[in-house]
Amino acid sequence: MSLKTQITALLGIEHPILLAPMAGVSGSQLTSAVSAAGGLGLLGGGYCHRDWIRQELDALQGTFFGVGLITWALDKDPEVLEMVLAYEPEAVFLSFGDIGPYVQRIQGTGARVIAQVQTLAGAQEAAAHGADIIVAQGTEAGGHGGARATLPLVAAVVDAVSDRPVLAAGGIADGRGLAAALMLGAQGVVCGTAFCASDEGLNHTRAKSAMIQATGDDTLRSTVFDLARGVDWSGDWKLRSLANDFTARWHNDLDAFRRHLAAEQVRYSQAREAGNFQEAAVIVGEAVDLVRATAPARKIVSAMVREAQDCLKTAPKFLEISDQPSTRPERYRM
Amino acid sequence: MSLKTQITALLGIEHPILLAPMAGVSGSQLTSAVSAAGGLGLLGGGYCHRDWIRQELDALQGTFFGVGLITWALDKDPEVLEMVLAYEPEAVFLSFGDIGPYVQRIQGTGARVIAQVQTLAGAQEAAAHGADIIVAQGTEAGGHGGARATLPLVAAVVDAVSDRPVLAAGGIADGRGLAAALMLGAQGVVCGTAFCASDEGLNHTRAKSAMIQATGDDTLRSTVFDLARGVDWSGDWKLRSLANDFTARWHNDLDAFRRHLAAEQVRYSQAREAGNFQEAAVIVGEAVDLVRATAPARKIVSAMVREAQDCLKTAPKFLEISDQPSTRPERYRM
Ligand SMILES: Cc1cc2nc3c(=O)[nH]c(=O)nc-3n(C[C@H](O)[C@H](O)[C@H](O)COP(=O)(O)O)c2cc1C
Ligand SMILES: Cc1cc2nc3c(=O)[nH]c(=O)nc-3n(C[C@H](O)[C@H](O)[C@H](O)COP(=O)(O)O)c2cc1C
Repeated sequence: MSLKTQITALLGIEHPILLAPMAGVSGSQLTSAVSAAGGLGLLGGGYCHRDWIRQELDALQGTFFGVGLITWALDKDPEVLEMVLAYEPEAVFLSFGDIGPYVQRIQGTGARVIAQVQTLAGAQEAAAHGADIIVAQGTEAGGHGGARATLPLVAAVVDAVSDRPVLAAGGIADGRGLAAALMLGAQGVVCGTAFCASDEGLNHTRAKSAMIQATGDDTLRSTVFDLARGVDWSGDWKLRSLANDFTARWHNDLDAFRRHLAAEQVRYSQAREAGNFQEAAVIVGEAVDLVRATAPARKIVSAMVREAQDCLKTAPKFLEISDQPSTRPERYRM
Repeated sequence: MSLKTQITALLGIEHPILLAPMAGVSGSQLTSAVSAAGGLGLLGGGYCHRDWIRQELDALQGTFFGVGLITWALDKDPEVLEMVLAYEPEAVFLSFGDIGPYVQRIQGTGARVIAQVQTLAGAQEAAAHGADIIVAQGTEAGGHGGARATLPLVAAVVDAVSDRPVLAAGGIADGRGLAAALMLGAQGVVCGTAFCASDEGLNHTRAKSAMIQATGDDTLRSTVFDLARGVDWSGDWKLRSLANDFTARWHNDLDAFRRHLAAEQVRYSQAREAGNFQEAAVIVGEAVDLVRATAPARKIVSAMVREAQDCLKTAPKFLEISDQPSTRPERYRM
């Protein structure tokens, strides 16, 4: 049994589940595994490092996959798009910037343009630029994002761009979340956190352990890790990750961090190489509550689908045609 | 036709919809209207101003209603609880503080304790204190709240306190949101923003117009309005409202605001009295996207129920048992 929506028809997939193109996590193995499980795997092309992307695309060659790129990083090296398109991805997923310059070029190859947005205005803009699929990303998402939350954003985006399919991203890591997204009018979901502790994901083993132990109460949004890594996320983009010793020390004292920047960047990169995740970033979203074990991606997808099917199949149980007298307590007199 | 969940049985209501006890908005009229429509109206007892509460409770006397109180305000004048209980409310809704001192006293009268929480840890604490019903409030909610978003918080809270009913609050203002909440495992919803422009709500006409024109992109969380009103919300509680000229001037310059506090408080209260909502707070959440007209509360409830019923009734349409060959594009070779 499968789950059918506009997006499964449009992309030719079994289940309306897309792997988020997570920089540093969604390599070719995880991408393949999610596609093989009936979803669409999106390679995490992230900051557009050519050599890494080429290596992973070589591994994916001839299979069913898409690629995600951070739009402002692509702006700095637009030729990366040509390299990616030569591998014939099913879709290119763009987020964090103006998709205008890229839409026609991508669609010209037959690939779909998937635009991730963080606001209603962003969704309207992406639709005006001709995006095929719009992803409404809520602030509970792992990684970079905006301020609006998934639940009300999805419904508003669906109303605003009703001529094209909308996917929900942010906070969805099980079948209940998938079923909820469909109720809101989304045609499917984009999941990152759900796959962060997957066997195929490129996270460090100790990072995966930290996720499994954490709850959603333990995440925060900050710019401090981008400063520490020296990545130029200008504007209002913040990164959601687990809170740790590093954020406890610096998150509320960014000025001091900037004063010691060079030395702290060295220390940070050492901690990262040492796999010390009380210092280095563990990038996950609030749905980390639902990440309770490592597992192969195939199992994560199939558990999500099965649970969503149960939720949807039994949804009509809430409806009751009742001729019985109201069960209100006696003192009700209105 | 009605919607049946654990909460409709527990409270003896037709539909699993509770009016949020909004300070300054949920007066006796709105409370009555939501109860009469088949939900549970909760009087917005807010900051525990005795005279106002007594007057509204007199109007509600003998009807079906609950009362909400801000817990830290109740701590300052605990006798207000006795006054409230004398009117025999169905339930007392507490938020923003430690419910421990009040649970047994409330339950001793037969009333239910509804505890609104903003974190997973808060939910576990409320359950340990014996709350009958737990409301998981997401950051997209109008008014005061915490940092976690509704969608992933609800699922996590349901898992953590599975022995008692959970309601979802924050971002839910139509039937899609209600259906989504039920998929997440909630037994119903608490709605504030949905009723902010209701005919019966105590908002100023010009505030209602501002809501109808705004989108969810236009809200922000800040402490500046509490400073301006001189309300002592210590801790990390922030207020979500529409952004306006006032927040543009002060939200990012709280130090300057504090330096001119006395004068600015006078100016603020004048703007408020004049109904100038480019200065005064219009308190709504991100679901304001879905608030498109003023309407009687009865209509808001019935539209929400009808839409949720449609969503739930047709939910199984996503399930498809298919013997057809996969629709995957030819180049899929995995
Ligand atoms: C580790 C990690 C890395 C991410 N990297 C990217 C990225 O490079 N590009 C991008 O568009 N989104 C990125 N995201 C955000 C995802 O696209 C998506 O919006 C998010 O994972 C959805 O929320 P969830 O984490 O709750 O599933 C990343 C998310 C995570 C958790
Ligand atoms: C105008 C307004 C006033 C509020 N006042 C209170 C209050 O006094 N006590 C309380 O517990 N919650 C209060 N809330 C929060 C609600 O209890 C509830 O969590 C919220 O309205 C749910 O999110 P929604 O606004 O998206 O429906 C208020 C909300 C609004 C919009």
